[in-house]
Amino acid sequence: MMHSHSVSSCSLPGAAAADGRSEGGSGRRGPDVHTTTLDNGLDIVVIPDRRVPVVTHMVWYRNGSGDDPLRKSGIAHFLEHLMFKGTEKHPAGTFSHLVASLGGQENAFTSYDYTAYYQRIAREHLGTMMAFEADRMTGLVLDDSAVDPERLVVLEERRMRTDTDPAAQLSEALAAALYTHNPYGTPIIGWQHEIETLDRHDALAYYGRFYTPENAILVVAGDVGADEVVALAQETYGRIPARGERPRRERAREPLPVASKRVSIADARVEQPYLQRAWLAPSVRTQAGAEAYALELLAEILGGGQTSLLYRHLVLDQGVAVNAGASYHATMLDDSRFDVYAVPAPGVTLEALDAAVGQVIAHLVDNGVSAPELARARTRFIAEMIYAQDSQVHMAHIYGSALAIGETVADVQQWTARIEAVDAEAVREAARRFLSRPHTAGFLLPA
Amino acid sequence: MMHSHSVSSCSLPGAAAADGRSEGGSGRRGPDVHTTTLDNGLDIVVIPDRRVPVVTHMVWYRNGSGDDPLRKSGIAHFLEHLMFKGTEKHPAGTFSHLVASLGGQENAFTSYDYTAYYQRIAREHLGTMMAFEADRMTGLVLDDSAVDPERLVVLEERRMRTDTDPAAQLSEALAAALYTHNPYGTPIIGWQHEIETLDRHDALAYYGRFYTPENAILVVAGDVGADEVVALAQETYGRIPARGERPRRERAREPLPVASKRVSIADARVEQPYLQRAWLAPSVRTQAGAEAYALELLAEILGGGQTSLLYRHLVLDQGVAVNAGASYHATMLDDSRFDVYAVPAPGVTLEALDAAVGQVIAHLVDNGVSAPELARARTRFIAEMIYAQDSQVHMAHIYGSALAIGETVADVQQWTARIEAVDAEAVREAARRFLSRPHTAGFLLPA
Repeated sequence: MMHSHSVSSCSLPGAAAADGRSEGGSGRRGPDVHTTTLDNGLDIVVIPDRRVPVVTHMVWYRNGSGDDPLRKSGIAHFLEHLMFKGTEKHPAGTFSHLVASLGGQENAFTSYDYTAYYQRIAREHLGTMMAFEADRMTGLVLDDSAVDPERLVVLEERRMRTDTDPAAQLSEALAAALYTHNPYGTPIIGWQHEIETLDRHDALAYYGRFYTPENAILVVAGDVGADEVVALAQETYGRIPARGERPRRERAREPLPVASKRVSIADARVEQPYLQRAWLAPSVRTQAGAEAYALELLAEILGGGQTSLLYRHLVLDQGVAVNAGASYHATMLDDSRFDVYAVPAPGVTLEALDAAVGQVIAHLVDNGVSAPELARARTRFIAEMIYAQDSQVHMAHIYGSALAIGETVADVQQWTARIEAVDAEAVREAARRFLSRPHTAGFLLPA
Repeated sequence: MMHSHSVSSCSLPGAAAADGRSEGGSGRRGPDVHTTTLDNGLDIVVIPDRRVPVVTHMVWYRNGSGDDPLRKSGIAHFLEHLMFKGTEKHPAGTFSHLVASLGGQENAFTSYDYTAYYQRIAREHLGTMMAFEADRMTGLVLDDSAVDPERLVVLEERRMRTDTDPAAQLSEALAAALYTHNPYGTPIIGWQHEIETLDRHDALAYYGRFYTPENAILVVAGDVGADEVVALAQETYGRIPARGERPRRERAREPLPVASKRVSIADARVEQPYLQRAWLAPSVRTQAGAEAYALELLAEILGGGQTSLLYRHLVLDQGVAVNAGASYHATMLDDSRFDVYAVPAPGVTLEALDAAVGQVIAHLVDNGVSAPELARARTRFIAEMIYAQDSQVHMAHIYGSALAIGETVADVQQWTARIEAVDAEAVREAARRFLSRPHTAGFLLPA
């Protein structure tokens, strides 16, 4: 088996600067993205990238671990593994072997809100990739001799990534404390005792429910025209019968937190303690107005790199931390989270550092952000987005993840303009509204 | 409307001393409980109590808030309210009016694992009660003009009980942090934003699924013979057609905690701060051996009244608390919890008190319990159980709640013997095993 898997613990920042005209008025434009939908409901996105004769072929399904049924946590990820077990037409290993023999790369990943499969390959093999990927959208064959060993693989993956790593355990516990009702509190890979029970019937039931043309998004980026992509897709994916409707996503919404929480792990294996704070915050899908864009810039200003407020105050000025930062992910189906972390300098307790973090945030809420600070953050943030466009796979990922949570191509293309429209008052208001909510702290400590 | 409702936040200790012979060899026996099952699957339990010409008529359903479907939290409790909205045969208010006019009392309650309805009434009206209760097992009529106002009643109930009370908010947040995956983390009454969406269709779908003869237990305690009860039940409940099988309960199991958690609420309305600690602990249904019985005695020894370890150490000896105690509920379908609380003396911080609580527990784990200490706790605990038998309603409750979670009449009747079989080493081992798990603390503080 040549393929590899990854479990994304969160989605990428769903951002693409498709229209760079406001960047100094250069007039540079983003890619001319083409979209269409086949008769069977399959959405198609084509992103031209003519620099090298290579294509990225991705299929995104609008289901992730957040859609795992009751008592079946981990099934989305488990099925991602099982999707490499072959079909009647293409027995196990055939697809991966083909990709490798053609000099391509492949991968698959499962996140909270989506699951995706992709190959990066020479352009002339795009049709073949489609034929194989379309085949496993409906033709997956699973028997216990394939499923049972793969369950052990996943359990070992969980053991290696989480159970032997106190930081990963803290991350799981923090998510579970922050999200008490919404499924983002359950790890993507699933809880061990539930993974242990997942069987062939669970996998096939889940596959039958979610792996349908209506639920899929084909994203092709690279050296190929939209007409050609659609024609190839029609011959392959287009032959899959429609199911009639897209499967429903039923997500429980997290209630607003009323209590402050702290989750602690003390473990002999911890060499470097640190603390986190996480706040429930709206996503681009749950925001009432444009809060998600303000939160992106707030994360940049508060904790994006060594010029950020947290880094300057805690590391450079006060010397209580050796590192500090913040992050936020807008591209989530349900309420997202705003995260801050800080790594204490030697001799500084996490309690003292936590208080110092609180002061930096309080200062921001009280005083707001200056115009130059905002301008710097915006420039940095947009530059990162534009830089990300340089990767064909990343571009495909940006569109695929956005569409998988219900955003449109227009939303992606207007992202930069929406970030640019955020003013200092909106950033301060986002801090005031969302960072004053009770937060969940995580403390990682030596035994 | 004469009826009242109650939301039990947890089940009663499921305990009955049915065989008192070992109590000084008095030879006194518990009631001669009769059980049978009708052809349609309805279980019947008859508990003779001939002291006064009164009966307690209860119907227990094997579904509680822990069985609420995804995004429908609160539906079990909401339906309990709606069960008083009448049937075609007996329009709204008729049943309650009848009970009151016959000098009876009625009530209903919803817990995590069951929902129950009961009347306490003169013995000659038992058949009438059965006719009315059987009628509303299948004949409930709901229209929006009844459902919509009742939703407002429930929302107001939630507002009054929880949202305006920091202690109740802490209790909800603590449960949600302790139970991150199992439904005991969701309040029985439901989360407000989900209660707001519950409608007639949700209520009828839930009613159709769970209110069936196979899912019900009829418990009659009082001045009536088993033959008479069964004959009356046959004429009333016996006419309800079987559904074929009992509805399935699908509960997610809580993973073992790996992180310590603390949940805090600071609120200007708090006059008396306190702290809690809660540990995930097996119930009588999830225990591997006899841990639940040892945990009952551990709670008694650690925190049952003013002779308990916590009270003696924290209140009497150290003077750091004005009150302290512990509790544990064995009669739960899923993993239960072991709880400790302490109320600080003036000037003592919750952190300092928490450390003192930890020392009392560590001392117990290190040194175990003495034989006289255990004997005193056992005597006190069993005496409480026997005293509880004096209440006809309580006796019916003990059997109903035990059977609703899958215990048998024999389990209830052997309860005392199982408590008596717990030795000092079992108590210490329960403390060592379960109280050394990471716990979830709750801190209630003034603003």
